[in-house]
Amino acid sequence: MNRFSFTEYLTSNAGLDASLVSSLVSSCQTKQYKSGDYLLREGERSLHSFFIEKGLAKMYGIDSRGKEHILQFAPEGWFVADRESAYFQKPATCFIQAIEDTSVLLIDEAHILEMARANPGFLEFNNKLLHNHIRHLNNRIYQLLSATAEERYLSFIKTYPDILLRVPQIMVASYLGITPESLSRVRKDLAGKHAAR
Amino acid sequence: MNRFSFTEYLTSNAGLDASLVSSLVSSCQTKQYKSGDYLLREGERSLHSFFIEKGLAKMYGIDSRGKEHILQFAPEGWFVADRESAYFQKPATCFIQAIEDTSVLLIDEAHILEMARANPGFLEFNNKLLHNHIRHLNNRIYQLLSATAEERYLSFIKTYPDILLRVPQIMVASYLGITPESLSRVRKDLAGKHAAR
Repeated sequence: MNRFSFTEYLTSNAGLDASLVSSLVSSCQTKQYKSGDYLLREGERSLHSFFIEKGLAKMYGIDSRGKEHILQFAPEGWFVADRESAYFQKPATCFIQAIEDTSVLLIDEAHILEMARANPGFLEFNNKLLHNHIRHLNNRIYQLLSATAEERYLSFIKTYPDILLRVPQIMVASYLGITPESLSRVRKDLAGKHAAR
Repeated sequence: MNRFSFTEYLTSNAGLDASLVSSLVSSCQTKQYKSGDYLLREGERSLHSFFIEKGLAKMYGIDSRGKEHILQFAPEGWFVADRESAYFQKPATCFIQAIEDTSVLLIDEAHILEMARANPGFLEFNNKLLHNHIRHLNNRIYQLLSATAEERYLSFIKTYPDILLRVPQIMVASYLGITPESLSRVRKDLAGKHAAR
């Protein structure tokens, strides 16, 4: 998989000048995780959110019956954060775990606020990022309320086109809120429709 | 129901000084809606988000099978916005409708950004508000993935303690992503448990 540098991300998406980008990036620590390592465990406190430069992570919770539910996948170029710990200084409610060897930038929210204060362009960019995230989460809620298993799967392919072959089916089913059997049926049906064309 | 003024909200929650609050509030238009009126319809463009001063609104979508799915209730003191239109200048993907006679403040996102630029305290407050909203949406997603009908109902009572008697059961079921029959069963079971104590 390609490396997706934070510098490249900020330069191409935020339209920030090079000195600002280099100041932000140089303030962040880079960390390497092996597949299976935890970026964050439930109950821990961390003031960081994470930007994935290479690899793949999942954020998930475990319910009272011991079942895992995946809230988010984070491939290259994605942010992932447990808000409870990163922004509200409380114990994390989720796990964030590498599911490939992963290279991560640790981002300090205090520094983000500082940058937003000092730079109107960055403030606007960060604000847009947050609203976009809210839009995305609202879409996911609407889908969990309304969509069939097939609709959920098709939307998943659109959101995460590049990771379908990188994660086991059982994780996809967990993210979609359907059983692995239901996911198998959907994939078989879609393959049938495709073959019949 | 009590009126919940935006001035009061900003003064008590954001810790902003009176002149700043008065500048923000005076820039917002107040609008009255009768029960059943639409604050926003799917497909419309609006650059406003809404702050409910009095009354109650719901944000919902209608699926391809004509069924309504409620994304959010907004009683006094809550914000409600279709991000697609308010922040990304695209046609709204949701409906926002008054379900009581409702008094609303129309908030212009451009003005919020302006205020955040000019005032570090407001920037921090607005940022916290957005992260808190993200935290709330993530909890809802986790619940839709993992929780039983009873767990969903108990969490609903916690989130919206004051509106349970103000909305019909069918709307509560729609918000929870369960059938009205399942909601009836949960309520009956809980009443039984309560009586058995």
